[in-house]
Amino acid sequence: MGGVWGSSIKYSIFGESHGRAVGIVIDGLPAGIKLDIGFIKCEMSRRAPARNDISSARGEIDDFEIISGYYNGVTTGAPLCAIIPNIDVHSQDYDELKNKPRPGHADYTGFVKYSGYNDYRGGGHFSGRLTSAIVFAGAIAKQILKTRGITIGGHILKIGKVQDSCFDMVNVSCRILDELRKKDFPVLDEDKGRDMKNVIMNAKEGLDSVGGIVEVAVLDMPAGVGNPFFDSVESMISHLLFSIPAVKGVEFGAGFDLADMNGSKANDEFYINGGRVRTYTNNNGGILGGITDGMPIIFRAVIKPTSSIGLMERTVDLEKKENTQIKIKGRHDPCIVPRALPAVESAAAMAVLELLGSGTALNK
Amino acid sequence: MGGVWGSSIKYSIFGESHGRAVGIVIDGLPAGIKLDIGFIKCEMSRRAPARNDISSARGEIDDFEIISGYYNGVTTGAPLCAIIPNIDVHSQDYDELKNKPRPGHADYTGFVKYSGYNDYRGGGHFSGRLTSAIVFAGAIAKQILKTRGITIGGHILKIGKVQDSCFDMVNVSCRILDELRKKDFPVLDEDKGRDMKNVIMNAKEGLDSVGGIVEVAVLDMPAGVGNPFFDSVESMISHLLFSIPAVKGVEFGAGFDLADMNGSKANDEFYINGGRVRTYTNNNGGILGGITDGMPIIFRAVIKPTSSIGLMERTVDLEKKENTQIKIKGRHDPCIVPRALPAVESAAAMAVLELLGSGTALNK
Amino acid sequence: MGGVWGSSIKYSIFGESHGRAVGIVIDGLPAGIKLDIGFIKCEMSRRAPARNDISSARGEIDDFEIISGYYNGVTTGAPLCAIIPNIDVHSQDYDELKNKPRPGHADYTGFVKYSGYNDYRGGGHFSGRLTSAIVFAGAIAKQILKTRGITIGGHILKIGKVQDSCFDMVNVSCRILDELRKKDFPVLDEDKGRDMKNVIMNAKEGLDSVGGIVEVAVLDMPAGVGNPFFDSVESMISHLLFSIPAVKGVEFGAGFDLADMNGSKANDEFYINGGRVRTYTNNNGGILGGITDGMPIIFRAVIKPTSSIGLMERTVDLEKKENTQIKIKGRHDPCIVPRALPAVESAAAMAVLELLGSGTALNK
Amino acid sequence: MGGVWGSSIKYSIFGESHGRAVGIVIDGLPAGIKLDIGFIKCEMSRRAPARNDISSARGEIDDFEIISGYYNGVTTGAPLCAIIPNIDVHSQDYDELKNKPRPGHADYTGFVKYSGYNDYRGGGHFSGRLTSAIVFAGAIAKQILKTRGITIGGHILKIGKVQDSCFDMVNVSCRILDELRKKDFPVLDEDKGRDMKNVIMNAKEGLDSVGGIVEVAVLDMPAGVGNPFFDSVESMISHLLFSIPAVKGVEFGAGFDLADMNGSKANDEFYINGGRVRTYTNNNGGILGGITDGMPIIFRAVIKPTSSIGLMERTVDLEKKENTQIKIKGRHDPCIVPRALPAVESAAAMAVLELLGSGTALNK
Repeated sequence: MGGVWGSSIKYSIFGESHGRAVGIVIDGLPAGIKLDIGFIKCEMSRRAPARNDISSARGEIDDFEIISGYYNGVTTGAPLCAIIPNIDVHSQDYDELKNKPRPGHADYTGFVKYSGYNDYRGGGHFSGRLTSAIVFAGAIAKQILKTRGITIGGHILKIGKVQDSCFDMVNVSCRILDELRKKDFPVLDEDKGRDMKNVIMNAKEGLDSVGGIVEVAVLDMPAGVGNPFFDSVESMISHLLFSIPAVKGVEFGAGFDLADMNGSKANDEFYINGGRVRTYTNNNGGILGGITDGMPIIFRAVIKPTSSIGLMERTVDLEKKENTQIKIKGRHDPCIVPRALPAVESAAAMAVLELLGSGTALNK
Repeated sequence: MGGVWGSSIKYSIFGESHGRAVGIVIDGLPAGIKLDIGFIKCEMSRRAPARNDISSARGEIDDFEIISGYYNGVTTGAPLCAIIPNIDVHSQDYDELKNKPRPGHADYTGFVKYSGYNDYRGGGHFSGRLTSAIVFAGAIAKQILKTRGITIGGHILKIGKVQDSCFDMVNVSCRILDELRKKDFPVLDEDKGRDMKNVIMNAKEGLDSVGGIVEVAVLDMPAGVGNPFFDSVESMISHLLFSIPAVKGVEFGAGFDLADMNGSKANDEFYINGGRVRTYTNNNGGILGGITDGMPIIFRAVIKPTSSIGLMERTVDLEKKENTQIKIKGRHDPCIVPRALPAVESAAAMAVLELLGSGTALNK
Repeated sequence: MGGVWGSSIKYSIFGESHGRAVGIVIDGLPAGIKLDIGFIKCEMSRRAPARNDISSARGEIDDFEIISGYYNGVTTGAPLCAIIPNIDVHSQDYDELKNKPRPGHADYTGFVKYSGYNDYRGGGHFSGRLTSAIVFAGAIAKQILKTRGITIGGHILKIGKVQDSCFDMVNVSCRILDELRKKDFPVLDEDKGRDMKNVIMNAKEGLDSVGGIVEVAVLDMPAGVGNPFFDSVESMISHLLFSIPAVKGVEFGAGFDLADMNGSKANDEFYINGGRVRTYTNNNGGILGGITDGMPIIFRAVIKPTSSIGLMERTVDLEKKENTQIKIKGRHDPCIVPRALPAVESAAAMAVLELLGSGTALNK
Repeated sequence: MGGVWGSSIKYSIFGESHGRAVGIVIDGLPAGIKLDIGFIKCEMSRRAPARNDISSARGEIDDFEIISGYYNGVTTGAPLCAIIPNIDVHSQDYDELKNKPRPGHADYTGFVKYSGYNDYRGGGHFSGRLTSAIVFAGAIAKQILKTRGITIGGHILKIGKVQDSCFDMVNVSCRILDELRKKDFPVLDEDKGRDMKNVIMNAKEGLDSVGGIVEVAVLDMPAGVGNPFFDSVESMISHLLFSIPAVKGVEFGAGFDLADMNGSKANDEFYINGGRVRTYTNNNGGILGGITDGMPIIFRAVIKPTSSIGLMERTVDLEKKENTQIKIKGRHDPCIVPRALPAVESAAAMAVLELLGSGTALNK
């Protein structure tokens, strides 16, 4: 339980924000996959900070080294271990925090779970920095999915009260996802994007932060992938999404709006199109009974506002067992939604690859 | 992948709607647990149909037999297998459906995944009837949790556009949960309950169905339970919730409302109360960094409207590969939200028990 | 941990010797497999007692019912649950044993592990009767393997000091395995078989029991199946073999004889035969570096003498905490090696199927 | 399947003989364990080559770096990753081998499994060098076990035809294990040790190699640990042992000698000693029904002769598909049994720790 996930491919994550490195071991990759290192770097730069004035100033470059399972430019089939060294760490920023848990962070829960032995510097193993390993793994998963014709991409759907257009759940195309991937601030409606950035800058000026929602599509999934109990497509994707710090809600298709729909509206009726079964609507987000129906998989994840803010907050002193206050120093993103998007896409890519890989080997 | 879930306790589910039985094997139960059979029956009756005029008329009684792992009134420590025989099945109702997938159901996706060999009668292994095995297992999990002081309960938060009061996320009490469990139609505000029933009756008269949202609380969880990557409390709970048919969205704490909160509002500030660390608010739903903080765990799940409706719908003939129509005969609930609630609670109980059991043995 | 095994196919075993039934849930079977029920019955009769005067007189018939995952004569892809009811149980035979653990049995260890709550009647969940569920599952695994051209079979290699001829590890053929499967007392050399039976009858007359060794071959395995760390072919097969009661040693190829071989003799040199790579010898038993090389997989398992004997033995009274004696009443096999053989073959079939199924899906 | 093992603690192994490093991620370690780095180094030096004239001349020093999960001298509870860099690699020694598989090695099976993409240099991921990561992990496991009073140790039982005394399976003591651990060539009878070394030197002079057997004891295990089906103590230990290259047989207690014992001799009769249940003999090697009985766990593993020998051998050219010959250059141990012993002990330590950790959390 904990740091290892998956069955046909197993991912073992490790590392701390202010330790030597973060990294991941990927066991079960097919042999002979030519890795597109440029693509991996590009994905990791989408998550890295300091791309613009709305993210934190820490100069991470998220360089990685592959130290096993990769030879002559291709995967060997043996476990692939990648390490992303930590540089530019300012541990002294965190000294005060040892006994004063920051509200919204895992300082307190980590302290309790690990009996005070957790590496508290910069959030330690709980740091958002761990998602760099997820994005590395997701970039490989995306490449493998690409060879099977499957594309994953998303956009920022909401920041504060500003909402972008939603995906057309029936017709969202690879072209749209590709365009979004190239944008610094990926939204469908650029005007809304401008408004969102203003919301973020306002939060920053107020020494505060703001949350948001991302929406992701998985296109050209074959029908028939997934399971009824217990490993539905929704189960597998949500399991990984909820391991990303700050994700507090996940919905598929029409999601929470299904509560006030009638069945006659919510049901996605079938038709034949060129021999293929399709649905007129996609309120189920491409998943029926836990199994893909061949329509786009659509989901949304809410990202809570950055927990680190510059305002004074009430907290406790865990040693003295008394109430106190804290004002967090150091560099913080006023909004992590843009950086969370590639992590969310990556987690989805890992989950989809797992679904394709497991439970089907003996059927072929 | 699929029909088995869990690590410290492993659940293996099996059965079909119109086969011999549904059932579950529970491996890893502690030995010597005196099962409260009356409580299990009571929980199962909460899920069973025919309790009132708003659910389907099929006379299931959900009687179960425990055929292993149970001796002299206590668990033996060996795998416990329970079987819930199917009676009163009308398989002829489903003959037409063999090649005509019902919109919203898993008929089509099951057909593709299992190459047409799936038992399509009554949805087969995809039937909501499988949740009777989940409720059986959940009733045992709840009993074990009770011995540790942990209580799980919930209410119908929304049906159509009618919304009940939300739980007070800081102060929700065991007393409230106990009262809810005794209600035929568990809501906090009885007036809203009456309105919800009207919405359901209207849907029924229109040969249609309606969806809703349930809200569940887990009280008196110790702090420090869960994991950062990959098995956060949210990951484990959502994994099981999304294996329940009809669940299409899950959120914790303030959930999707976190999108337009500022960090200064969303962060749950700490204080000391009688030596215990508490938070003033509970927007994180009792979970920080994937680990419990000792506050109530609060989550909501959206239940889509019953897929079976009495209206004509467009579908395809999978054999003739042409468009056609279907009108579903047989007995159907116009709203499954009330029956889904105990299944959702049970899944949560199983997930919480797993979190308590795994990853901690060597720490003790 | 415990009652569930496997990854691509998951087996959940349950039941007790004197409870309602024993059974197994098999999750992950491909859909559309036509089960040869006659073959399954035949395999189970190989394990059942009372076939002749050398086994116990309990009239088990090992009839089974498939209660899920099977429709219209084929597997549906959903979990298949089979139940083998217990009949003809004489629980009173075991009353004395409650506090007096039988030497060689799991009475004492089960008492400790399960804090005295274990079902001690007839060994409960530890009974050799559980292997009927293994033989059921193995019969299905063998059928699936047969469709891929793979055959599994074995013989009694040794009883007491009498040893049958060993398999020719390079040239053992399907024809030999098929002939062995049809024999009541499967040995290569019938004279040795007669001597073995005498050893067994002698033990029986002395109210004693005797052990032995079985040798099994897996033919026509493709090369390239298995893993280096941690799931070598040897790891997977031995894991399941050692869960069969009475197995206390497992060796592959030349096994323990490799200790006094030189590398120049032990190494299996390669040659090309009709385009296929073969080895001149097969001291590695068809496995190199944990992966099949295309030669027959050969292994041997030692079966300890039946623990139940008719002689007085020293034991303890667990309640009174004092030394005492016990003489076991009831019916017992003087030698379980013949009945263990189909269980050992079945465990091997399950392990081989797992190896074929897992870790390869994404490579295809 | 493959590079990850364990449930309560998960081990992920990675690396190649001639790549950047080998390493391991250990997830699930309790927090707050003070690691005895000196002990780990000492254990690793037992496995390292070049300790004397009977092992290969490669100057590995097996230095390791802990890059996560370790802070201020104690484990943090987060995944601990250790890396053992490769130095002094002579890859050119292996160029000829690309298409000519070495008999006894995994070159051919790795080539088939990984479609020719495997890193063949020095055996790549199949190299015995991977066991340095096992010994690292085992050293930590041994430390944790020590805090619970459990000791693991072993000796070289046989090299060629020379056999050391066996452990007294009832009375083997920690003192004996401690003494063995300090020896360069751990045997009980030094005269036999001298003879064994002569056997090894003779093999070396003949450009050949020789195999052997190791015997290991686990002392002071509590009774009641393990499982009936499928994760018996024997299953868990053998699973890990058989993932160590060169292990081809494993037996517990009297092992293969049980074949010609009668039950009256093989059964270990019970008696009470100072309130504790003990057995007069220990033919079951401390395990009954897959569960510990409190007596020493005793097992033996056969190690095949080193596959790399200096003599000409017949092999095939995988590219030209024709018969050819090979003579292996480079440095090789004439006997790896002494270096295999700490790896075997380590695998046993990992398995025992897993058995202690899993399936018991909810019982406490």
